[in-house]
Amino acid sequence: MSPQGRPEGEYRSAQHEGNPVTPQGPKSEYAIAAQQDSSASGTLLLVPNTLDLGAAEVDLQDVLPLAVIRRAAGLRYWAAEDARSTRAFLKRVDAIVPLGVPLQTLDIRELPRPRKGSREAIPAQEWHALLAPALQGHDLGLISEAGLPAVADPGAALVAAAHAASVPVLPLAGASSLLLALAASGLNGQSFAFVGYLPQESAARLARIRELEGMSRRLAQAQLLIETPYRNGAMLAALLEALAPTTRLSVSCGLTLPSGWSRSEAVAQWRARGVGVVMPDRVPAVFVFAAG
Amino acid sequence: MSPQGRPEGEYRSAQHEGNPVTPQGPKSEYAIAAQQDSSASGTLLLVPNTLDLGAAEVDLQDVLPLAVIRRAAGLRYWAAEDARSTRAFLKRVDAIVPLGVPLQTLDIRELPRPRKGSREAIPAQEWHALLAPALQGHDLGLISEAGLPAVADPGAALVAAAHAASVPVLPLAGASSLLLALAASGLNGQSFAFVGYLPQESAARLARIRELEGMSRRLAQAQLLIETPYRNGAMLAALLEALAPTTRLSVSCGLTLPSGWSRSEAVAQWRARGVGVVMPDRVPAVFVFAAG
Repeated sequence: MSPQGRPEGEYRSAQHEGNPVTPQGPKSEYAIAAQQDSSASGTLLLVPNTLDLGAAEVDLQDVLPLAVIRRAAGLRYWAAEDARSTRAFLKRVDAIVPLGVPLQTLDIRELPRPRKGSREAIPAQEWHALLAPALQGHDLGLISEAGLPAVADPGAALVAAAHAASVPVLPLAGASSLLLALAASGLNGQSFAFVGYLPQESAARLARIRELEGMSRRLAQAQLLIETPYRNGAMLAALLEALAPTTRLSVSCGLTLPSGWSRSEAVAQWRARGVGVVMPDRVPAVFVFAAG
Repeated sequence: MSPQGRPEGEYRSAQHEGNPVTPQGPKSEYAIAAQQDSSASGTLLLVPNTLDLGAAEVDLQDVLPLAVIRRAAGLRYWAAEDARSTRAFLKRVDAIVPLGVPLQTLDIRELPRPRKGSREAIPAQEWHALLAPALQGHDLGLISEAGLPAVADPGAALVAAAHAASVPVLPLAGASSLLLALAASGLNGQSFAFVGYLPQESAARLARIRELEGMSRRLAQAQLLIETPYRNGAMLAALLEALAPTTRLSVSCGLTLPSGWSRSEAVAQWRARGVGVVMPDRVPAVFVFAAG
């Protein structure tokens, strides 16, 4: 992307603008946070994972910067979606940069999960408890099952807890399949929305796709969505059923994997191709579409 | 993120659903593309750049996977936003993995720019012409000034041209400041929109911020936006003026840089902090907010 990509003529200097920010509003909560000695606190490091979950493993150095692998190797405290897969990840790290302490002695805590059938939010103190190592001065790694943590996963609540407790948050450079798919789509990267999962029920899903297509048209906004891998074929079918022929649809499947591919064309062209498109049922995919 | 993060009980197997896709619609355009011998074509590689544009350079291995550096070192043909900064990038690559051919002999073409004052789209044949090396069987790199190419930059048109010409598109793993900022915000990663730049004019900008806040509330959607670095201070002031006290605002500044930071709290807390927040005027920032 181009952080400085606008034509120069449009700029006005910030120096000539007054700063309307004045110290107003409730101070209590911030004042409490500020009273903590944040210099004694460790950092919450957001550690990117690979994108090969459920597929054949790629070389860690294909997808992660060496510095990220080094930082991961040095961390003793972890918060993770899944402890077992985090240990598997750290074994791969260890093969490149030896871990600072033996794998068995690492402190890996799993993120709390909502109780089965319960829609109640997890109490704030459960998140805060996970921050204990950081509050005691140790760096703490947060990792998810794939890609960036705290994007489309429960880790976001831990990041929010860290900010509330004045624990510094440091995202390490890593890839998100969402943005790789957007880049590979050739669709509008100036304006896009990630809408997560769609309803499972067929009629509701078709209605939702049409609603999103309407938003895409109205806002000139590309729409990104994902599905559980083994339902990707059904999702593609639903998109081709619901979308207008002129809408552009991109599918990226298995990004960063040797078998990965990206295809982007009008829905009419996808339909012409028909059943020739096979979606593997164990490989993550990202769908992007933009109304034509 | 969790591509498989939904509870198992919600799934239905795709095998039990019919495929409503039937070969319908116009076949002409696709048929033409399919006639090409795509096996003879090179690949359009989307090469991520660092996020240190305009700042002190970071070590390339802090932010890019070794495999990406190797692929970049081996490419002879490039399409770039800016040839000069691409050569500077490739000098940094060369220091880690020697380039396949001398820097001076690389073929680096700049993306076409709209004529000054013109709002006319660049003709499709100009984009197609840039694909010449790929159509002749060579791999072609696309790179932007920062982060992923074809996200919030003109490269998306080249990617679209590649798809139209059946040139395979391969995004290499790299970081986007947008998603790093979202991860670091702790705000809702399940649903978010990137809205690009806001209007420059003060009243229009405030109105747009309030419109986006309304969407954030209605859709439970985090809103991401960027600004030219030297206007970041003015943008923060406008956000603090326009947003509701309970809206959560996150600012990530200089991500992946040693001086980088992320802060996330309610607007009321930001206001209490007042002018104590200094936005550097040469460092890229990403703003994220979510209505409370």
